[in-house]
Amino acid sequence: MAGIEQLAQNAHFGGVIRKYSSQSKALGGLKTQFNVFLPKEALDGDKVPVLYYLAGLTCTEDTAPWKGGFMRDAAAEGIAIVFPDTSPRGAGIEGEEKDWDFGTAAGFYLNATKDPWSKHYNMYDFVTSELPSFLSSLSLPLDLSRSSIFGHSMGGHGALTLYFKSLLASSPATAYLSASAFAPITNPTQCPWGEKAFSGYLDGGVEEGKQYDATELVKQVKGKEVKVLVDVGTGDQFYQQKQLLPENFIAARDAAGFSSKDIEVNLHENYDHSYYFISTFAPAHVKFHAKILKAAPSKL
Amino acid sequence: MAGIEQLAQNAHFGGVIRKYSSQSKALGGLKTQFNVFLPKEALDGDKVPVLYYLAGLTCTEDTAPWKGGFMRDAAAEGIAIVFPDTSPRGAGIEGEEKDWDFGTAAGFYLNATKDPWSKHYNMYDFVTSELPSFLSSLSLPLDLSRSSIFGHSMGGHGALTLYFKSLLASSPATAYLSASAFAPITNPTQCPWGEKAFSGYLDGGVEEGKQYDATELVKQVKGKEVKVLVDVGTGDQFYQQKQLLPENFIAARDAAGFSSKDIEVNLHENYDHSYYFISTFAPAHVKFHAKILKAAPSKL
Repeated sequence: MAGIEQLAQNAHFGGVIRKYSSQSKALGGLKTQFNVFLPKEALDGDKVPVLYYLAGLTCTEDTAPWKGGFMRDAAAEGIAIVFPDTSPRGAGIEGEEKDWDFGTAAGFYLNATKDPWSKHYNMYDFVTSELPSFLSSLSLPLDLSRSSIFGHSMGGHGALTLYFKSLLASSPATAYLSASAFAPITNPTQCPWGEKAFSGYLDGGVEEGKQYDATELVKQVKGKEVKVLVDVGTGDQFYQQKQLLPENFIAARDAAGFSSKDIEVNLHENYDHSYYFISTFAPAHVKFHAKILKAAPSKL
Repeated sequence: MAGIEQLAQNAHFGGVIRKYSSQSKALGGLKTQFNVFLPKEALDGDKVPVLYYLAGLTCTEDTAPWKGGFMRDAAAEGIAIVFPDTSPRGAGIEGEEKDWDFGTAAGFYLNATKDPWSKHYNMYDFVTSELPSFLSSLSLPLDLSRSSIFGHSMGGHGALTLYFKSLLASSPATAYLSASAFAPITNPTQCPWGEKAFSGYLDGGVEEGKQYDATELVKQVKGKEVKVLVDVGTGDQFYQQKQLLPENFIAARDAAGFSSKDIEVNLHENYDHSYYFISTFAPAHVKFHAKILKAAPSKL
């Protein structure tokens, strides 16, 4: 497709990881980069299922490919992983680069409604709609009808909320089959990171942010078939600082009548917020999604 | 031990990775940092075998723990991995920071003999002698009598040369049981990187550098029991630029009468010089060493 440029390709676990750059409408015309891991099966021509990974604050599209340890299992399972960036870059908004938890690399996977952010900060639309359309136009050997999503911290928030919102939509741009998260921000309307992001990006502030809050959304998907896995370390400083609030998410899950088989939340002693934690539980997450993705009938 | 400071600890694959800082005599009194991965067995009190990893040009003690993908297998096998830095830092020598392939992060795992480098640039002594003494003084649950070594690029050169030199020494500071390398510089006296390093660090220049050249040393270990694994990607730009020269190493191996069972050298189509390549073959390397280390009798 004209406009999507391949910047790099590296052989990796029998497949390849490719880096692309494209101008994005959702991000107000800015260029954005993303990585795609294609397993050997895809290179051989099979249309393979797709797992999206959303990274956390301060990260880029490269952080998880480098540090996550996901591709060994993705290769073994024959699934692709797609890694977008964490925000638009270079919008030129005053203060955009000032904080590590707002603006650049902190897009929070929402659609901003407040000026001057609303023109560019639309990672929700980018991930759910424009990114899959990029993958389609590249004619990559992907079965986009079988997609799941996972992420870390802010990206764990993104994965859970995009998944729940797709279950609630009558015709979602992407209908994810499962979601998982490492140390997600599960109740952003109740924690400092989320309050700052929603107040900054949304005209309606924290109240408007409820539609992007996994603990709010889990109540709304009551009765639906839900497939979620969450891991959190109790040595995580942000867990300890009440930024993640899995206890609120668990309470909402229980109140909505979901079992820990529907929504499994595990707390792990000593593990922290770093990629040393993520990579430890990476195999379990990739296998969790692969099992669901590979069992699902293709809608191609 | 007074003088060795623990800077961090992260839970990782059921064990921990610890970062230490210490003043080093070999490095002229400068502080240096290193990481140690201890598997669960070590935390439970077992003395586990030790694998040293030497990183390449531009890297630090953190590069491989973050990107290498080694710990999943180290944890499964119950072995420790120790990650030193790639050079002294902050010696204050003019030009030290000028080039990416000489000076800082380019210590080449030798003992410099040329002023002004000889006071600080002694990574050979640091890795073979002082670093193990640090590990001893920390009373870590390590069996230092069962040690092996591996590395990447400049660090692959380091791993091969330290191993061959240990086989040749009557009483080596560390007697490594095996060595392996990803994309090593196997014949540094014949390539630009090695010529620059040896001319810069050694009074006797490239001629003196022959003692740090794996292709020279493999001839000298003729007749000994040798356990070496090497992987190189043919898509590696530095292979293509004749910096790695595995063809010279293979020819010297063959001439010395070693089989590919003694010294296995594999060329892999398309793979490049990056950690995408390293992490792909990481499991095989860790398992190669673990098998040898765990079969060896302890000399504790």
